[in-house]
Amino acid sequence: MTEFIPPGTRFIDLPSPFPMKRGGALVGARMAYETWGTQDPAGGNAILILTGLSPDAHARSHDGDPAPGWWDAMIGPGRPIDTDRWFVVCVNSLGSCKGSTGPASTDPETGAVYRLGFPELSIEDGADAAAHVVRALGIGRLACVIGNSMGGMTALSLLARHPGLARAHVNICGAARALPFSIAIRSLQREAIRLDPDWNGGRYDEATYPESGMRMARKLGVITYRSALEWDGRFGRVRLESDRRDDDDPFGLEFEVESYLEGHARRFVRRFDPNCYLYLSRSMDWFDIGDSVDGDTAAGLSALQVERALAIGVQTDILFPLQQQQQIAEGLRAGGVDASFLPLASPQGHDAFLVDIERFGPAVGGFLDAL
Amino acid sequence: MTEFIPPGTRFIDLPSPFPMKRGGALVGARMAYETWGTQDPAGGNAILILTGLSPDAHARSHDGDPAPGWWDAMIGPGRPIDTDRWFVVCVNSLGSCKGSTGPASTDPETGAVYRLGFPELSIEDGADAAAHVVRALGIGRLACVIGNSMGGMTALSLLARHPGLARAHVNICGAARALPFSIAIRSLQREAIRLDPDWNGGRYDEATYPESGMRMARKLGVITYRSALEWDGRFGRVRLESDRRDDDDPFGLEFEVESYLEGHARRFVRRFDPNCYLYLSRSMDWFDIGDSVDGDTAAGLSALQVERALAIGVQTDILFPLQQQQQIAEGLRAGGVDASFLPLASPQGHDAFLVDIERFGPAVGGFLDAL
Repeated sequence: MTEFIPPGTRFIDLPSPFPMKRGGALVGARMAYETWGTQDPAGGNAILILTGLSPDAHARSHDGDPAPGWWDAMIGPGRPIDTDRWFVVCVNSLGSCKGSTGPASTDPETGAVYRLGFPELSIEDGADAAAHVVRALGIGRLACVIGNSMGGMTALSLLARHPGLARAHVNICGAARALPFSIAIRSLQREAIRLDPDWNGGRYDEATYPESGMRMARKLGVITYRSALEWDGRFGRVRLESDRRDDDDPFGLEFEVESYLEGHARRFVRRFDPNCYLYLSRSMDWFDIGDSVDGDTAAGLSALQVERALAIGVQTDILFPLQQQQQIAEGLRAGGVDASFLPLASPQGHDAFLVDIERFGPAVGGFLDAL
Repeated sequence: MTEFIPPGTRFIDLPSPFPMKRGGALVGARMAYETWGTQDPAGGNAILILTGLSPDAHARSHDGDPAPGWWDAMIGPGRPIDTDRWFVVCVNSLGSCKGSTGPASTDPETGAVYRLGFPELSIEDGADAAAHVVRALGIGRLACVIGNSMGGMTALSLLARHPGLARAHVNICGAARALPFSIAIRSLQREAIRLDPDWNGGRYDEATYPESGMRMARKLGVITYRSALEWDGRFGRVRLESDRRDDDDPFGLEFEVESYLEGHARRFVRRFDPNCYLYLSRSMDWFDIGDSVDGDTAAGLSALQVERALAIGVQTDILFPLQQQQQIAEGLRAGGVDASFLPLASPQGHDAFLVDIERFGPAVGGFLDAL
């Protein structure tokens, strides 16, 4: 229903109509993006960042928007993704509500918000839209495409559908296909939203936002983004002070970890559009890089053309487990790519790439420095 | 609201009043139990089985109830828990809805169902109630107390509060205290039930059973009871045949794994009382064997008195992770117990003890044979 667009966002129109993989087309659609650093006249120093489900394009602060970005520690002068050398582009995913066209946008053909009238969204559509942004910025060939989580899927799809568009690739906690455990988690998140009477088949508004469904979805997300190991050290069995508890609610918050989840849920609901969440979530379930080769994931990976690649995983990640990044590296290698697999011992689970800069900084920075 | 009592269930009255750890007392309460095998005149061949959250006392078929039990493969003549040698007792947990008194039972003092008027339930209350059953059956000392999952907590509490009542102990996928990841999962399950408008503060009836909340809770349970590894081999990315899909529901079931969860949820809802679920779930969050020694879990474990113990864990268990069974074995050893830790490579996660009889049979049977 509502879009949430950072103030420094810029836009590039998609070709109109923009055909969608599973049918239908978008008319008058656009992509939101932000950039850092300076583009070489030759255009060889560009890096594209593709995000997970929820982030916007504001990966780092800049003159147009001094607010901290979601990957500030990784991007900037002298940082692992060094903007003294690289021209860094981050796009908001197609189908999101942070500036790129999605289910919360207005359909120019009807004048009404798309809602569930938005065409079925696939990872491949997001890859095509991102590739259009790259070309529209005058970038003939990316030095590297970096994809985190869902963005790791999008990056693989971009390599498959736009051969030659990137010289190198870093896949961070991504996957070549969705596994049933992750599908189950996402299916349950979507069910929580759909069960909320306020969702109302996607026809909510500000006053009837499906808040409890989105809270449940977000809490389940946060549980699967982190790890038991981290939480044991961080929260243990610490209880809330009595003034932070509701004594009239016999099943109310009692432990710090419950309060932590509650805080995450509060910061998320009404900051993300529920229909966009459903569309993006489902697009991940559908993804398999082997789709175009009879569901042979390894064959799909070995057909990808890049010179060098790095697949980074985290030992405590239960949502995109380590074996998935290993599969990516091995599949690329089978196709002749100089690809490495780097398992990290971060305790923070799937979200480690956002917080364990001590491990991810050298891993990503080292790879880029050697390009 | 409703109790679900297997036909062959027997009952033992608890002392009345039966004091509860966190305050209040039960009047006219009873415990449901079933037995297999023959009790030695000397009473030295008794084994007590304490269950996870949802099972009833019907662990195995018998003349009074030929229906298969939930642990048929483990119990019986010549089976790992060999009823030719052992007199096996399984109790339904206090607070459950399968025969033992709980929130779905009628409060004899008011003539109405307890609902949220049931006193706060702790694991310790369940241990005291189980110990009463043991003594009421004329068992001076158990040969062994076996606890699975939540029952592993109850067993540790029984050892702490009733020293000398058991000679040996097998802890299966149990824990000496609840960890924040598991607390978070259970908190979310309880929230799903409480958010269902039909829960209505615990005042539902048959017509208004909080079905969607219980479905969500059960699905989340099943996700955390199994493992990503198992599901990848079992379901992969297999989709439902089109005749099993609802084409009018754009976010309906599509993958086999979603249908599997749906089936589990359907079999569970209306077969378990939601208020009982809330009480038992919360009792696990509260449990820490170190509570009586200033929250020092290791000290709580080392104070336990048994001769021999075995703590079995599963590498793919995310709900009661392996480290927790290791902690139990190490804590018991520190107190002088001959205790072993046995990590198993079962792919089925927390539920492995119910299905991976190939691994669990020899592990439990071998320990019991040597007693």
